Amino acid sequence: MRLLECVPNISEGRDQDKITLLAEGVKKHRGVRLLDFSSDKDHHRSVFTFIGEPEAIKDAVFSLAMQAIDLIDMREHQGGHPRLGAVDVVPFIPIQGVEMEEAIQIAHAFGKALGKRGIPIFFYEEASTQPERKDLPSIRRGEYEGLEEKLKDPEWKPDEGPHHFNPRSGATVVGARFPLVAYNVNLETKDLALAREIAKKVRFKDGGFPHVRAMGVDLKEKGIVQVSMNLTNYRATNIPEVYEFIRGEALKKGVEIEGSEIVGLIPMGVLEGIAQNYLKYPQFSIRQVIEQRILEFE
Amino acid sequence: MRLLECVPNISEGRDQDKITLLAEGVKKHRGVRLLDFSSDKDHHRSVFTFIGEPEAIKDAVFSLAMQAIDLIDMREHQGGHPRLGAVDVVPFIPIQGVEMEEAIQIAHAFGKALGKRGIPIFFYEEASTQPERKDLPSIRRGEYEGLEEKLKDPEWKPDEGPHHFNPRSGATVVGARFPLVAYNVNLETKDLALAREIAKKVRFKDGGFPHVRAMGVDLKEKGIVQVSMNLTNYRATNIPEVYEFIRGEALKKGVEIEGSEIVGLIPMGVLEGIAQNYLKYPQFSIRQVIEQRILEFE
Repeated sequence: MRLLECVPNISEGRDQDKITLLAEGVKKHRGVRLLDFSSDKDHHRSVFTFIGEPEAIKDAVFSLAMQAIDLIDMREHQGGHPRLGAVDVVPFIPIQGVEMEEAIQIAHAFGKALGKRGIPIFFYEEASTQPERKDLPSIRRGEYEGLEEKLKDPEWKPDEGPHHFNPRSGATVVGARFPLVAYNVNLETKDLALAREIAKKVRFKDGGFPHVRAMGVDLKEKGIVQVSMNLTNYRATNIPEVYEFIRGEALKKGVEIEGSEIVGLIPMGVLEGIAQNYLKYPQFSIRQVIEQRILEFE
Repeated sequence: MRLLECVPNISEGRDQDKITLLAEGVKKHRGVRLLDFSSDKDHHRSVFTFIGEPEAIKDAVFSLAMQAIDLIDMREHQGGHPRLGAVDVVPFIPIQGVEMEEAIQIAHAFGKALGKRGIPIFFYEEASTQPERKDLPSIRRGEYEGLEEKLKDPEWKPDEGPHHFNPRSGATVVGARFPLVAYNVNLETKDLALAREIAKKVRFKDGGFPHVRAMGVDLKEKGIVQVSMNLTNYRATNIPEVYEFIRGEALKKGVEIEGSEIVGLIPMGVLEGIAQNYLKYPQFSIRQVIEQRILEFE
């Protein structure tokens, strides 16, 4: 079984009937598992997380987008979260047996199909066509309210769809990215400066590990500090590399690791990397896991 | 999804039509996945590995046993592998979400049902009712050919079924056990005595870790030696404990670990233990794994 994840962010977080309708629509697709969906009334926004074979996911997210465009009128939308359109952001995330190249192709095909329905489309992250469109915040700058003006700028010609404003639906940002691993390492010290110093050394921006974002955080209640990280491509930099690096850096100052934690869900591939690293076992594969074999039955 | 595994050993390894019939019979059960089946002509024996919800597994293995008893006449059976009956050994193995207590109950219920069909039943391993029936070899001693005599001994009154010989079907050994983790650690040395010495220290029999069997092996082709282990209850002693112990013992003699390997399939719970140990993360759970969430949809 090949697994592609899709996490569309939809600009409807208040009308429970509409949200349920959207969720039920996703579930109806054979082979698609809706792992989670959550809504925020203040943000007026819902996030759907579903997973399955790439073809099934492509169908499910297109139906969802069509339904959302039908239900949502951006002229009436107000919420605390930055957004450009009714179907605001659609990332495709390869989880297992799917290469990034394929996820990008699917993002492009989805964007093209949605563009044909009159929605301006911008591709971001791995699916981006220009460096300045790689980051979501820069595409979304100005939000829905500034979109009509933004689209007049030739530099903001959409990647797909019409080069004019769609007042009802806004625009959609479509992309492909690796699954994000949110990983924190706690240090047995109150020394926030140390956590910040290590965060700086570990993060890519300041010369550290590829695809690592990091910051030092004060966990006041626990009386310790934390190096809080996002690993945005665990195949390039996985948990053991940052854990061992932080351990070494902390030890130089006589500080021990108090513990570590993963926030949210991870692909099994993260565990594969942990076993490979710590057991001197580079050939280890999740295909040796009974539960994985069960999934392959599907 | 709760997962119970069953690995019946059936005394038919030559007639491909019969073996296929048995395998197809297992597959027909809804929710049962036949992960593997293999036959050995010399042993005249087949091993079926299937997994699923406990209730489904109970039904599937009972059908399989009935069919095997119908197809096999032990009076005509000859093979290299020790055996007592047509349905020779039936272990139930809790993989996920199933406690050992429940696996034992299922083993007992299955044994009772099969006993009612005229087959003497002995319970072994965790399902055993007496210490001298814990080990399979002691129950199987004398094999099918000695069974008529063995059953005359009051000490060998079966746990279920008739206390007399069934010439056509022999007897069946039914049990519950944890999944076996076959794990080897290779040492960067030709010193077989060192591997043997470490194996002795690590194995339970000689005062080492609970539920660990171990021996030293000469890997002549590779020019190194190996500590070859079976972890018979990975929840009590998991891979990191033996790996780190062996690493420490080898280092005392200035020897490094060359690498390690898992033979066959493991439950995801083994990886859970590896992450918990190496990342100082005792709360880590496989419920944080995306693929696990997909399984829970079933």
